[in-house]
Amino acid sequence: MKKFENFSQWFDEILFNADILDNRYPVKGFAVYKTWGFKIIKRILQILEEKLDETGHIPMLFPVVIPEDAFAKESEHIKGFSSEVFWVTHAGDRELDRRLLLRPTSETAMYPMFSLWIRSHAGLPLKVYQSVAVYRYETKATRPLLRMREFLWNEAHTAHKNWEDAERQVKEAIEIYDGVFKRLGLSYLIIMRPDFDKFAGAVYSIAFDAWNPDGRVNQIGTVHNLGENFARAFEITYEDLDGSHKYVVQTCYGFGVSRVLAAIIAQHSDDHGLILPPEVAPIQVVIVPIVYKGVAEDVEAYAREVYEIIRRGGLRVHLDDTPDKTPGEKYYYWEMFGVPVRVEVGPRDQRERKVTIVDRLSFRRRVVELGEVVETIKGLFNEIIEGLRERSERTLKEFIKDVSDASALTKIIEDKKIARVSWCESIECAEKIREISGGEIRGYRIDVEEKPKGPCVICGREAKKVIYVAKAY
Amino acid sequence: MKKFENFSQWFDEILFNADILDNRYPVKGFAVYKTWGFKIIKRILQILEEKLDETGHIPMLFPVVIPEDAFAKESEHIKGFSSEVFWVTHAGDRELDRRLLLRPTSETAMYPMFSLWIRSHAGLPLKVYQSVAVYRYETKATRPLLRMREFLWNEAHTAHKNWEDAERQVKEAIEIYDGVFKRLGLSYLIIMRPDFDKFAGAVYSIAFDAWNPDGRVNQIGTVHNLGENFARAFEITYEDLDGSHKYVVQTCYGFGVSRVLAAIIAQHSDDHGLILPPEVAPIQVVIVPIVYKGVAEDVEAYAREVYEIIRRGGLRVHLDDTPDKTPGEKYYYWEMFGVPVRVEVGPRDQRERKVTIVDRLSFRRRVVELGEVVETIKGLFNEIIEGLRERSERTLKEFIKDVSDASALTKIIEDKKIARVSWCESIECAEKIREISGGEIRGYRIDVEEKPKGPCVICGREAKKVIYVAKAY
Repeated sequence: MKKFENFSQWFDEILFNADILDNRYPVKGFAVYKTWGFKIIKRILQILEEKLDETGHIPMLFPVVIPEDAFAKESEHIKGFSSEVFWVTHAGDRELDRRLLLRPTSETAMYPMFSLWIRSHAGLPLKVYQSVAVYRYETKATRPLLRMREFLWNEAHTAHKNWEDAERQVKEAIEIYDGVFKRLGLSYLIIMRPDFDKFAGAVYSIAFDAWNPDGRVNQIGTVHNLGENFARAFEITYEDLDGSHKYVVQTCYGFGVSRVLAAIIAQHSDDHGLILPPEVAPIQVVIVPIVYKGVAEDVEAYAREVYEIIRRGGLRVHLDDTPDKTPGEKYYYWEMFGVPVRVEVGPRDQRERKVTIVDRLSFRRRVVELGEVVETIKGLFNEIIEGLRERSERTLKEFIKDVSDASALTKIIEDKKIARVSWCESIECAEKIREISGGEIRGYRIDVEEKPKGPCVICGREAKKVIYVAKAY
Repeated sequence: MKKFENFSQWFDEILFNADILDNRYPVKGFAVYKTWGFKIIKRILQILEEKLDETGHIPMLFPVVIPEDAFAKESEHIKGFSSEVFWVTHAGDRELDRRLLLRPTSETAMYPMFSLWIRSHAGLPLKVYQSVAVYRYETKATRPLLRMREFLWNEAHTAHKNWEDAERQVKEAIEIYDGVFKRLGLSYLIIMRPDFDKFAGAVYSIAFDAWNPDGRVNQIGTVHNLGENFARAFEITYEDLDGSHKYVVQTCYGFGVSRVLAAIIAQHSDDHGLILPPEVAPIQVVIVPIVYKGVAEDVEAYAREVYEIIRRGGLRVHLDDTPDKTPGEKYYYWEMFGVPVRVEVGPRDQRERKVTIVDRLSFRRRVVELGEVVETIKGLFNEIIEGLRERSERTLKEFIKDVSDASALTKIIEDKKIARVSWCESIECAEKIREISGGEIRGYRIDVEEKPKGPCVICGREAKKVIYVAKAY
């Protein structure tokens, strides 16, 4: 499969041919989201935002620019981000009094307002989200969807009375993201980042690392417990029941929808093109009439009848009745776009009042009665997402290679796999791992408990953690 | 009414109290869209985008930054916008090779891509839209929603084979906007802008000027025929049927959703707070149980039953069962938020299986059988939007004052009205009108035909046009 042989080229071709993104925009790291891609993104965000609404998060929209003084308030945060922010310095031909930066993430845009809004325990928790673009001047090679200087995400920011409430919020956030990713059939590791790789300003960071065909992991989501770090910097306090004033404890989490789309494409698609989870497919069912001379009219009328039945069944259906293409060309076209189910309607189908149904994953054909078409397709949707999920999970397992000696580590990373190693938790060994492997220490899993089976892969002393090492986007 | 006496203060209070927008963000001209406001904006955009989808427009998303060389290609365009664009000049501590500007509008972001995409007549028309924020360094006093340095809009950009097709597109755009604005109950003039006030780079510009309580008009939408101006600058050509290569003819149009929200608030609301068109109200119906000691349980159970019936009726309903507020406090609260219909459920309602319904516009009470509640409310929704529209149209008419001599003109503008005058079409008289009135020449109406009834208000020569003069946001 080309997907695993030459991921980069395969990916670029799909993005272009399936109308996902055009990377020829004349600024590096910035691209145009084209119609099919943007529609998928909107559907992914809709699923997420529904979940956020259900769990008491409220939508807002904060400005794209942040004043330099607010950005500088939390010292770790500015250290982590200052090398990669874009600066707005002029308007017209005037220099601005204060420089403004384009949000690389919105803590320092939101928290000055939190400090105005939060007064009493009765107003807590506060759980705010927005779906926006953020801006980071990536110095590594940019890659469409995977590593952009402008990328789309949803970020949520919460404030709580105490550490325990914030910890509960971290769990809720993980559950929400995990639920959405699972609905998209994705496979990933849920990982506690090592201290040296946590979010700038966080107490700890948890991340969702999805597998990618080229062995680099793709961080599709992160959840951070911020403790009181930002609350102290931005003076966000509340009056408790007993009249005392306390700092809030905060969490924030980001859902990288550009990267989630990348993961959907990278994990599920094949050499025919996209394969979309039915829930986010802009078109879920395409009807292709098999028209021959002389019998065209009947078949076309029947195809329209089939269309109406499927549409009334609540599915997003398209009837491809363009006259200048053969049925085969239409199959090929819609396969590229990843439409989950194709319905073929030929003269025989029409005579027998049946339809032929083909799913995008197995390409298996089924002939069913017209009255059963909606139920059959809905069942197929379930089969497709189950099938995608199972296949993706299998691949993730195949990607993970246990390594017990340092020399093997280098080879695993060179082979484009994810290494699982035991580690003593010392910084020296971490640096050594990075150095010899050329990969990054992602951290240890929190979705399953893993105990070291041997000593530290570097120093041979007692290992404390089972960690994952991989190249990353 | 305070709304007409002190619009500015009334408006600021509503924005704050009804959770529309917080203007305390620490960068001038940038504000936070709060939850209630942002939800209304999303519903307005949803109505618009559905209409755009139905008429063959496709959504995309273009970058926020535009390289300076692309921006400079169309000479009139850069002249019109260069004094008010924000410049990104640095990333981290490095100076960028080329300065980037934040889009003030997206012609120069989109058209380099159009030039790559458009090849043949078969690909035309191309009709693209996006809903995004745009950035303009307003030097006049900024006003929340009405005049911001970051504001939200939907912009559509189209390319056509010839002038006739572009002219048809202008008509379609006006119909779409007019239809959406009417659904929101807004009143406005559809106006051909004078040549000296058209969009920078356009052949001509048409604008929707909504009335505002302070007499300043609020431009909520614009439609431009760009002719070949940008096509020549960006080399956007297509191969016609006969093999010849031709420039496309373009149109673009902007729907200023921040300003549309401002117009909804300004035109419809009263001194109790917002009054929302039911179609865009985040909550359309609020149920308030009238609970007394001893009978509370029955009433609360009945209120939940009413809630379920209304919810199943497909309406956005909220049951306000907060225990620590009186019914009167709840009425007051939801009136501020402009919820179109309130349902009161008291012990007598419960015994008789009825409900009491009050609409936000007339405050009239109606007692109806439980079985009729959904139909009654739906009927009320129609009455409310009709009532809002009629009242708004009446006010617009009252705002317009005919002026036949120059001395009266000054007074009309001082009185915060819109002046209608006859004009000879000379630049000299236009400048004189502006000078003596302190208002702007908005242009002549195209939604109704108006013939001058007298000579030019300035020079006394034959008048060519009936034009409107007003202050503007």
